[in-house]
Amino acid sequence: MPGATAQTLRPFLWRARRMFPDREIVSRTHEGINRYTYAEYADRVGQLANALDGAGVERGDRVGTFCWNHHRHYETYFAAPSMGAQLHTINPLLPDHHVQYIVENAEDRIILVDPSLVEKLAGAHDEEAFASVEQFVVMGEEVPDTSLENVVDYESFLEAESAEYDWPDLPGDQPAGMCYTSGTTGKPKGVEYTQEMLWAHTMATLPEAGLDLRSSDVVMPVVPMFHVNAWGMPFSTTAAGAKHVYPGPSPSPADLASLIEEEGVTLTAGVPTVWLGLLEYLEENDADMSSLETIVIGGSAAPKSVIRRFDEEYDVDVLHAWGMTEMSPIGTVSRLKPGMESLPAEERYDKQAKQGLLIPGLEMRVVGDDGEELPWDGEAFGELWVRGPWVTTEYFERPEANEEDFEDGWLKTGDVVTVDEEGYVKIVDRAKDVIKSGGEWISSVELENALMAHDGVAEATVVGVPHQRWQERPVAFVVPAASADEETLKTELVEMVKSEFPKWWAPDEVVFIEEVPKTATGKFDKKVLREEYDDESLVEGKTPEDAAPDADD
Amino acid sequence: MPGATAQTLRPFLWRARRMFPDREIVSRTHEGINRYTYAEYADRVGQLANALDGAGVERGDRVGTFCWNHHRHYETYFAAPSMGAQLHTINPLLPDHHVQYIVENAEDRIILVDPSLVEKLAGAHDEEAFASVEQFVVMGEEVPDTSLENVVDYESFLEAESAEYDWPDLPGDQPAGMCYTSGTTGKPKGVEYTQEMLWAHTMATLPEAGLDLRSSDVVMPVVPMFHVNAWGMPFSTTAAGAKHVYPGPSPSPADLASLIEEEGVTLTAGVPTVWLGLLEYLEENDADMSSLETIVIGGSAAPKSVIRRFDEEYDVDVLHAWGMTEMSPIGTVSRLKPGMESLPAEERYDKQAKQGLLIPGLEMRVVGDDGEELPWDGEAFGELWVRGPWVTTEYFERPEANEEDFEDGWLKTGDVVTVDEEGYVKIVDRAKDVIKSGGEWISSVELENALMAHDGVAEATVVGVPHQRWQERPVAFVVPAASADEETLKTELVEMVKSEFPKWWAPDEVVFIEEVPKTATGKFDKKVLREEYDDESLVEGKTPEDAAPDADD
Repeated sequence: MPGATAQTLRPFLWRARRMFPDREIVSRTHEGINRYTYAEYADRVGQLANALDGAGVERGDRVGTFCWNHHRHYETYFAAPSMGAQLHTINPLLPDHHVQYIVENAEDRIILVDPSLVEKLAGAHDEEAFASVEQFVVMGEEVPDTSLENVVDYESFLEAESAEYDWPDLPGDQPAGMCYTSGTTGKPKGVEYTQEMLWAHTMATLPEAGLDLRSSDVVMPVVPMFHVNAWGMPFSTTAAGAKHVYPGPSPSPADLASLIEEEGVTLTAGVPTVWLGLLEYLEENDADMSSLETIVIGGSAAPKSVIRRFDEEYDVDVLHAWGMTEMSPIGTVSRLKPGMESLPAEERYDKQAKQGLLIPGLEMRVVGDDGEELPWDGEAFGELWVRGPWVTTEYFERPEANEEDFEDGWLKTGDVVTVDEEGYVKIVDRAKDVIKSGGEWISSVELENALMAHDGVAEATVVGVPHQRWQERPVAFVVPAASADEETLKTELVEMVKSEFPKWWAPDEVVFIEEVPKTATGKFDKKVLREEYDDESLVEGKTPEDAAPDADD
Repeated sequence: MPGATAQTLRPFLWRARRMFPDREIVSRTHEGINRYTYAEYADRVGQLANALDGAGVERGDRVGTFCWNHHRHYETYFAAPSMGAQLHTINPLLPDHHVQYIVENAEDRIILVDPSLVEKLAGAHDEEAFASVEQFVVMGEEVPDTSLENVVDYESFLEAESAEYDWPDLPGDQPAGMCYTSGTTGKPKGVEYTQEMLWAHTMATLPEAGLDLRSSDVVMPVVPMFHVNAWGMPFSTTAAGAKHVYPGPSPSPADLASLIEEEGVTLTAGVPTVWLGLLEYLEENDADMSSLETIVIGGSAAPKSVIRRFDEEYDVDVLHAWGMTEMSPIGTVSRLKPGMESLPAEERYDKQAKQGLLIPGLEMRVVGDDGEELPWDGEAFGELWVRGPWVTTEYFERPEANEEDFEDGWLKTGDVVTVDEEGYVKIVDRAKDVIKSGGEWISSVELENALMAHDGVAEATVVGVPHQRWQERPVAFVVPAASADEETLKTELVEMVKSEFPKWWAPDEVVFIEEVPKTATGKFDKKVLREEYDDESLVEGKTPEDAAPDADD
């Protein structure tokens, strides 16, 4: 059979060490700023692999990390996969029972843990769930007081080891990474990344259609390294031979501003709240942001106002991206096409506020309720399905979830989207939240955004409740602003929706509540409301006769 | 087993069709300029796949092409591989007996041939060698007079076909492409490219470290499409969503200048002679080269003078690249590292005149005579070995060549190189031409360049002849300039070499000849000289005592 050498991470480490030996890795740790070069980095990666060997980690074993973003965590990114083990990044923000489930399910052999997270991990520790874990390595120079047993500090773990390691030839399908999705319902689901999936994701995110990483870049991932490999940036930055900046545990906006200024960061990445925080900080404080060219925003939708402010006030380009744990994770990037730079600013921001274009190497379709593929007209919306070389085709040991979320090699993302004529994807809802009424879909998110824009509304969420004729009908749950008169407000909100959307999108009922229930991570918990209103009583007799989708035509 | 969808070319075509439907493909044909969009292109690719289906081409069958660079050839690039067949590009410049060997060895089912090449192909046609070929398709609107049988013109072949084709799910190891190396000795060797090799090469050439292709680019491959897929550019340009310009059969410098000017070409690629021709043309003629940003030069070494002139006179960046048929083909690209832009111009040109940095995803080593790896000091030279996801690990049906050219997954390139401290590769010789003397290597190419720089020399080549003590010693074969006095010249040449190189590099003998023997493609044919001087008689008693490499120290 014709073929070539397997796709693995090894050449990326090799190239950075040999061709960019003097480029820096800068890391903010609890001990202060750490600074070294790729040459020193590669030596320490070799030492770590030898230490893991010594600790009994074998081909296929999982190495867990429970860490923030710093150079030691980055060392595990190449050491564990390149020796044939599997890097399993555990989210330290998860509740204890999820950490227990994940460690037990993954059977981690060893866990590397940050000093500031030792107590949290010790709290989650459970003899049975942690039965596979033989050792804990604390990411620093000493071991704090802890109830954990078999604990060593990272620097002692590495100290006596050789920097030389004979990296093996691994097959492309060797599991190299692992991350669990933290859904709001049910147990977390594990996603394994093979060597070739990580390779493909790395190569796909380097070009213009991805993150456009160049050797001159200074890259600071603020997105946590336990969050789908910090969107792959530790790998892609290495492949590009660029400089890394890791902001360490709980960086404040002041920490970020100072790292950008002092290290000359050109590209950074994180969720919207981080950048809202930075904008607020910059209003009150002076900081030189002139090196910064690009902020990659993902995790949740980038508000247009944030895109506008960074462009107008700081000449920084926001690159809106979308992905999933199941996708290694990047799927779309909202980069303007040739010619769009000359559009009026608001039109540019509108494009950038969408999730963007699928990057080369992937395929997608938008699937309607009855399984047919929908047109790209910016209006029709359906569930987004994706497939490609860095999109997994299964969950780890979860056959029931596999049946639900995969079909014919496609991942059913659970995101409901529109795609415009140019191919820009816009997420309008989660599949479980979209309201299915009269054979058409109503976006709960768009209704919520409209309602929350009204002065009389403090918070609002929209949920579909069962309806005999229409299947589901929208009901709005509104926390009124202090001054609002509820009856007037109710009429105004319904009229407003009717004027901005198809009439049949108008909620059949507006229920005033004191607070929208929230999940552990602060998102609206619609599940609670759906369970409370799981019969027709709320909309009975209230659904207008023109609730049929075609009543508008 | 965890995993993802196979890596194939399909998503590239899909993405260009759906996201860049209006970007153009421009093609200079014997019928004039042809211009259409990705949307129309994709329709014709579908038609071609249906036509090939109808002609009986099945999964794994080879589709031969005997064509220049134009849109129809580009249509075969996606149609044949994406239906599961294998695109086999045949070099129409090969002698008939090589064409016969190649067609017979590959067992092509069908051959697509340019109108201007029908006569050449008919001349090479041979019942036995062409036994597998069932049909010939002429790349135009009509069939010229020919002795070939079962001939149809391309437009009639496509005319009745549907544009819809249900592209299959192919495995990554499906053979998708094929090209033969045309060595100067022995039979051509076939290299097969799988879907995932072409995918990996495409992804690897998109970023900065490759060709840095962007959707705004206008790409004109002058390098023939029969020459290792025109360095992969028809694939990578499609993946980027950029505009294609194909210069058609035998483009003159005037044709190239006019295409650059009229189509706004930003990046073009070809062998050095093409660009020497363009520079000459531009001296005498006005043409607007302002759109042009980059010329990729490969195939043979880019002269520093060409790099300098394009930079100084046209503000065009020459991107020197190196590769091999065995490497799909790109291996190195000589892009300046961050900070090098501020070097003095001559130092920049020196870097750019090297073959450059290995692109991310590959690994290399430089191997000395006794198998040890050599340092990167810009001086030590040895054979370059490479491996990676787009480097083949075998020739098609050539076990004896496989044993010689591959070792432990490495391709022994046959190129002798130095690598400097920065990692820039410089080719100093072919392995078969390097002179092995006293356990050290002498570069025949460097000696030749030095000799030919002397005013008294018209042409010169240097060959190693056998020597009992030193294994080999260099002998120069010199065609003197008309005016030269041979005895004086001989002394001058030997002294010159001694002053510029280690003393033991000086040729033991200078033989004056009337012409350097040449191969069919115009290269020096050292084999002829080596065969003629295969004993010690030429250097007997002439080798100086200080020919030992360490005599210099």
